[in-house]
Amino acid sequence: MPRFMDVHSGFVGLTAEQLQEAHQRDLAIEGEEGVHFEHAWLDPVSGKAFCLSNGPDKHSVLRVHERAGHPTTEIYEVPIEVD
Amino acid sequence: MPRFMDVHSGFVGLTAEQLQEAHQRDLAIEGEEGVHFEHAWLDPVSGKAFCLSNGPDKHSVLRVHERAGHPTTEIYEVPIEVD
Repeated sequence: MPRFMDVHSGFVGLTAEQLQEAHQRDLAIEGEEGVHFEHAWLDPVSGKAFCLSNGPDKHSVLRVHERAGHPTTEIYEVPIEVD
Repeated sequence: MPRFMDVHSGFVGLTAEQLQEAHQRDLAIEGEEGVHFEHAWLDPVSGKAFCLSNGPDKHSVLRVHERAGHPTTEIYEVPIEVD
């Protein structure tokens, strides 16, 4: 299953609880699109958030975010990883 | 130790081996700056790469990338995470 990194802007001042709530709205419906959100990181100063997910394609991932109320258009398929 | 996500552009067509080589150049010197690069993801189509690291501050992370030959200026401290 392809893996994706998507990027959100505008989350300035979001708390850990608010990010958890937003993430839960994704998790609640992700199965309907065959998507799983694995992890999210937030910089509350700049308002940037990064979400790592897997799913059938970019559109499915973006649809979950849109239905959950936090749409973005910036998403990258990341088939190459190192650690 | 704070955690950071930094973003690179321009890596269009990079292979897994080339990403590994670039990452190894970071790993070889990261200790000198008190930094550790934990993971990197690459989209070879758009050329975007994302690096997750920890270290004392943004400047230390950027200095490792610069010394390793792949500087960037886009970096975010990400103190909030969910999974």
